[in-house]
Amino acid sequence: MVKVKIIGATGYGGIGLIELLTQHPEAQITALVAREEVGKRISDVYPHLDGFCDLPILDAADPRAQEAPANVVVFSTPDRVGMYEAEKILETGAKVLDFSGDFRFTSQEAYADYAIRHGKDPVHAAPQLLGKNAYGLAELHREAIRKAEVVGNPGCFACSCILGLSPAAKAAWFDPMSVICDCKTGVSGAGKKLAATFHYPARYENMNAYKMAGHQHVCEVERELSLQYGEPVRITFTAHVLPICRGIMSTLYAQLKTPMTEEDAVAYYRTFYKDSPFVRVYGSKAPIGSNCVARTNFCDLVVSVDTRVNRLRVVSYIDNLMKGQAGSALQNINLMTGLPETLGLMRSGMYP
Amino acid sequence: MVKVKIIGATGYGGIGLIELLTQHPEAQITALVAREEVGKRISDVYPHLDGFCDLPILDAADPRAQEAPANVVVFSTPDRVGMYEAEKILETGAKVLDFSGDFRFTSQEAYADYAIRHGKDPVHAAPQLLGKNAYGLAELHREAIRKAEVVGNPGCFACSCILGLSPAAKAAWFDPMSVICDCKTGVSGAGKKLAATFHYPARYENMNAYKMAGHQHVCEVERELSLQYGEPVRITFTAHVLPICRGIMSTLYAQLKTPMTEEDAVAYYRTFYKDSPFVRVYGSKAPIGSNCVARTNFCDLVVSVDTRVNRLRVVSYIDNLMKGQAGSALQNINLMTGLPETLGLMRSGMYP
Amino acid sequence: MVKVKIIGATGYGGIGLIELLTQHPEAQITALVAREEVGKRISDVYPHLDGFCDLPILDAADPRAQEAPANVVVFSTPDRVGMYEAEKILETGAKVLDFSGDFRFTSQEAYADYAIRHGKDPVHAAPQLLGKNAYGLAELHREAIRKAEVVGNPGCFACSCILGLSPAAKAAWFDPMSVICDCKTGVSGAGKKLAATFHYPARYENMNAYKMAGHQHVCEVERELSLQYGEPVRITFTAHVLPICRGIMSTLYAQLKTPMTEEDAVAYYRTFYKDSPFVRVYGSKAPIGSNCVARTNFCDLVVSVDTRVNRLRVVSYIDNLMKGQAGSALQNINLMTGLPETLGLMRSGMYP
Amino acid sequence: MVKVKIIGATGYGGIGLIELLTQHPEAQITALVAREEVGKRISDVYPHLDGFCDLPILDAADPRAQEAPANVVVFSTPDRVGMYEAEKILETGAKVLDFSGDFRFTSQEAYADYAIRHGKDPVHAAPQLLGKNAYGLAELHREAIRKAEVVGNPGCFACSCILGLSPAAKAAWFDPMSVICDCKTGVSGAGKKLAATFHYPARYENMNAYKMAGHQHVCEVERELSLQYGEPVRITFTAHVLPICRGIMSTLYAQLKTPMTEEDAVAYYRTFYKDSPFVRVYGSKAPIGSNCVARTNFCDLVVSVDTRVNRLRVVSYIDNLMKGQAGSALQNINLMTGLPETLGLMRSGMYP
Repeated sequence: MVKVKIIGATGYGGIGLIELLTQHPEAQITALVAREEVGKRISDVYPHLDGFCDLPILDAADPRAQEAPANVVVFSTPDRVGMYEAEKILETGAKVLDFSGDFRFTSQEAYADYAIRHGKDPVHAAPQLLGKNAYGLAELHREAIRKAEVVGNPGCFACSCILGLSPAAKAAWFDPMSVICDCKTGVSGAGKKLAATFHYPARYENMNAYKMAGHQHVCEVERELSLQYGEPVRITFTAHVLPICRGIMSTLYAQLKTPMTEEDAVAYYRTFYKDSPFVRVYGSKAPIGSNCVARTNFCDLVVSVDTRVNRLRVVSYIDNLMKGQAGSALQNINLMTGLPETLGLMRSGMYP
Repeated sequence: MVKVKIIGATGYGGIGLIELLTQHPEAQITALVAREEVGKRISDVYPHLDGFCDLPILDAADPRAQEAPANVVVFSTPDRVGMYEAEKILETGAKVLDFSGDFRFTSQEAYADYAIRHGKDPVHAAPQLLGKNAYGLAELHREAIRKAEVVGNPGCFACSCILGLSPAAKAAWFDPMSVICDCKTGVSGAGKKLAATFHYPARYENMNAYKMAGHQHVCEVERELSLQYGEPVRITFTAHVLPICRGIMSTLYAQLKTPMTEEDAVAYYRTFYKDSPFVRVYGSKAPIGSNCVARTNFCDLVVSVDTRVNRLRVVSYIDNLMKGQAGSALQNINLMTGLPETLGLMRSGMYP
Repeated sequence: MVKVKIIGATGYGGIGLIELLTQHPEAQITALVAREEVGKRISDVYPHLDGFCDLPILDAADPRAQEAPANVVVFSTPDRVGMYEAEKILETGAKVLDFSGDFRFTSQEAYADYAIRHGKDPVHAAPQLLGKNAYGLAELHREAIRKAEVVGNPGCFACSCILGLSPAAKAAWFDPMSVICDCKTGVSGAGKKLAATFHYPARYENMNAYKMAGHQHVCEVERELSLQYGEPVRITFTAHVLPICRGIMSTLYAQLKTPMTEEDAVAYYRTFYKDSPFVRVYGSKAPIGSNCVARTNFCDLVVSVDTRVNRLRVVSYIDNLMKGQAGSALQNINLMTGLPETLGLMRSGMYP
Repeated sequence: MVKVKIIGATGYGGIGLIELLTQHPEAQITALVAREEVGKRISDVYPHLDGFCDLPILDAADPRAQEAPANVVVFSTPDRVGMYEAEKILETGAKVLDFSGDFRFTSQEAYADYAIRHGKDPVHAAPQLLGKNAYGLAELHREAIRKAEVVGNPGCFACSCILGLSPAAKAAWFDPMSVICDCKTGVSGAGKKLAATFHYPARYENMNAYKMAGHQHVCEVERELSLQYGEPVRITFTAHVLPICRGIMSTLYAQLKTPMTEEDAVAYYRTFYKDSPFVRVYGSKAPIGSNCVARTNFCDLVVSVDTRVNRLRVVSYIDNLMKGQAGSALQNINLMTGLPETLGLMRSGMYP
């Protein structure tokens, strides 16, 4: 039985992972740690968990939190929390999975580039672990994740864009300076922190582009696509927020070097992902929408070509809190602990 | 392995049951029958099922449909379909579960009363089966369902009202003429049939009361509450539709005969439902909302007393497509086939 | 030209009144006062007003705020703000319109009862003005509002319930202890203050009853209905919040003393409101929903009788921010300043 | 008083124009024609109009429809209706405004190109009128609209894209083969015709790209941008539908020929639109969203430059039923009849 301890248990990422683990046949939660609501049962705060997880919310300093056994410690925390704790945890023999940007980069330089771009301290607090870590997108780094001591769970937008363009990048189909990622997210992508712009009445029937000066996920996308391509890929990225709860739809454009049919593109994508059970590839006539992946770990890709102007167009659908967060996290935990990759995750969504 | 055949597989009830059965460890689907989309794979029409259920949609007359083995045949069909087929199915040794009003009543008189009230033919087509059937609300009729050859799955509103008031009715706390059921449902309660009033733009930010002259679920509620009470109970029932997808919230009022505290009422309700794993009872301070039960088989009851006027007030929350339909259906299938009542159903919802 | 000064200009009530006044042919805004965003233009904070109202947001102490001329000063502020300022404003010759509970009651006793029920100081700060004030529901107190120096704008739920039951109360049709008000509101009814329960993802597809121990609007409803009835009326009131932005739907029940037809009830209601241009009365077959009144000052009433149990049932629809707040406010300003009651308000909603 | 007759009065476009005209000081509706609900009052079908417009819905052949005087006859009808009627109407001295694609093109060739692309008969039924007509986007064709006998109201997506890119096209800032229009619309853009994909439960929390093979508005956008540019402009256009009622957000990308700052771009756009009262231009830091233009005739443009890759990015917000349909229509009627362009339209939206 794999033992999991969750730090930051009361945010959307923590809750999502609790929900999944209560259904997992080979894993159990040993402790929940958070800074808010300490002392209450998690199911008092989130009554949908009543009868499924009634563990107390513990302060990080609580001995019960410290002494709880763990094979994996999950940090569902903001940037620059996990990096200060990881080393100590590794010393206990546990592995670390971090939801923030702390371990998404495998060198100090890459981390610094990321940190500077969105106004954080560029000095990593655990540089000795960079290189021992893996980027937690199983579809591209399955083996590295299995072996890594520390895994950085991907950003939600990044996950959708990278899965949507990696096959084309690997095949070097497009001009690497021509990529545009037009991304639309439900509001839950911003987490549970209150904000005037996410107050229900202010958000109702209201959609907008935001962070137009630069979104923190751009670094991940450019780094991973460049890795696949073998040359630097540079993107224009626009984040939009829409008045739904869950879901990301990223529409991805790239100028093809040579003409190509949709059929060929779809076939190649399917081959690329043939060993990835959570990616499903479709042509442009399939009736795919974000509801096909809602509350699941799937990424559905609709691959097409605008032949009039020779442009690849991929629409990538994920649930930002599942494949974009807790689902990928469990997929990573499975890999990190030697369990089957799909355990506890292979479930369809519900319609409507 | 329990074998299930679904007639009317492409409606919300059918799809919901397919989703549940693909996760069920002891049941499998043997055939899907519908009148629309015949010949396509169910997952071509509902791509969220891609990889989970790729069975073809068959015409009722198709030999593959006729010959598929079944322990239970489910009719997810409108009124007056299942009643014409049930006898033949029973002869094959299978049991019948019907989602319509056809088998919710156990006498010709009760059926006729129901049928007349909402403008249908009052003559039941299989009167010989009335009396061998059970009303499929496990919390009240668990043993009868286990033994019945035919089970009538409850109406969604009815389920919420009956669970909300049965303990008080059983204890005869209230004046049986004083009951008011003020019920609010998401739009999915009306099924997938297109209607101007459920066209997305027409329904957006739009709520209204409807069928004020009389809703077809009233008969079930009055019959079951009267059964518990031991005297005729008569209700005023108002149905409202709200611009959400899933969820029923029924606010139930009844004039108490003698004063009572909330604490006593809650305690009694908990005792009443102590062997019913899908009913959770709370006092008025618990932060319960329809999201606590969304996409689950739970009914969450908030029990309170307006002591100023000596009135019982219960708020009953269910997911209309789960406890109100496919979830109760699977709970009944489990009972009808000797499986544990909660198999394949004991799962929390997801937040947010 | 009527001059209006708005205190609390950046809340929903303030913004709503600004929107209306920018279209009003006989009124103008002379100053906007608030505690937040001081120094900015209102249209920088709310860009939909760009070009319509570009006035600066002033601190209350700013001489420009103090010296701006005004015929009416509007307090779109919480309880216990306006009561401390009203006397000074009256001395300048201006009238006062207050959105809070401060001037909804015309005696110290009534105010104290209200204040105690929801945990506020029961001592009114301007008792000398009680009696000179009017309850700002024009349909019942048109003449009093015309003459009053201070008007208390009604609560949004209260407005919907009082309009829905006043005709029946006036005619003493029902048992005064039998009234139930089952009220459903969109989230904007809670104002713009951030709260976990109104964070967009937490509220999406989530509905619940709240404040079950007692809502602050109950006092107003009971006071006004008792006034119409001539005897004390006592109500059970349940507030529910639904995931829409605007709209209140109140379903109102009362036990009739003698049988009555829907036709007679509708006819009497129409007569009662024949001089009230913002109330429209319908029978139960009219396709009325909250969208019929959205973004307008109308109250649409659907009047029916459950003849099986002899119970009156009225569904009352308003826009909580219009007839429930800023619309009633402008209606009152018109009356207080001798303008036609409907000026700047007689506009239909938009479909869909 | 300008007299307006509306053909196709019961669709979203017709209703929207009725709403506007009931508030217009210098125009009146003389007849409403439709194929559905004939004989009823428009306010029986759309009760929000009760008291504002209670005209009967007439059959086209009804003498009352035929004989009603009109200065402008509006066809709020599908393609290939207005083109058969226009000549007769012009003979009566009235002008024609058509909401469909019938009169959006000024030559038979352009019409045929449009018709072929979306599978319609390429032969125009009134070729003699092409050339006498104008494209009804006032911001670009104000004088032509004033003089035209027939005006083709723009498509909603087209309106948002053309307004968003015309200044840059006029200045030839970008590579004319590099334009991408990533457009998001609320569901009302698809009109009131029922469809499975717009059934409320199926659309709830569900977003998707559609018509990926080619949308009918592409022709208009390419034609108008090419006209501004002076060279052929070719676009990749992706339509997405989102679960809101009203609103279009189009994110527009084009590769700049030479580097440019956001400040310069914004300044030039403001100059370009200085005489267009319904276009407001902002930089990327302004808090603009679709709610800023909801239920108004405004187009709000957020202009920015991705300087890392030298790409222009404009986000264009309109209400698809107002500036994208009925609002532009009234703007055109004003121009066609010599009234001030903004009459009856200069109104802010409502928040929230």
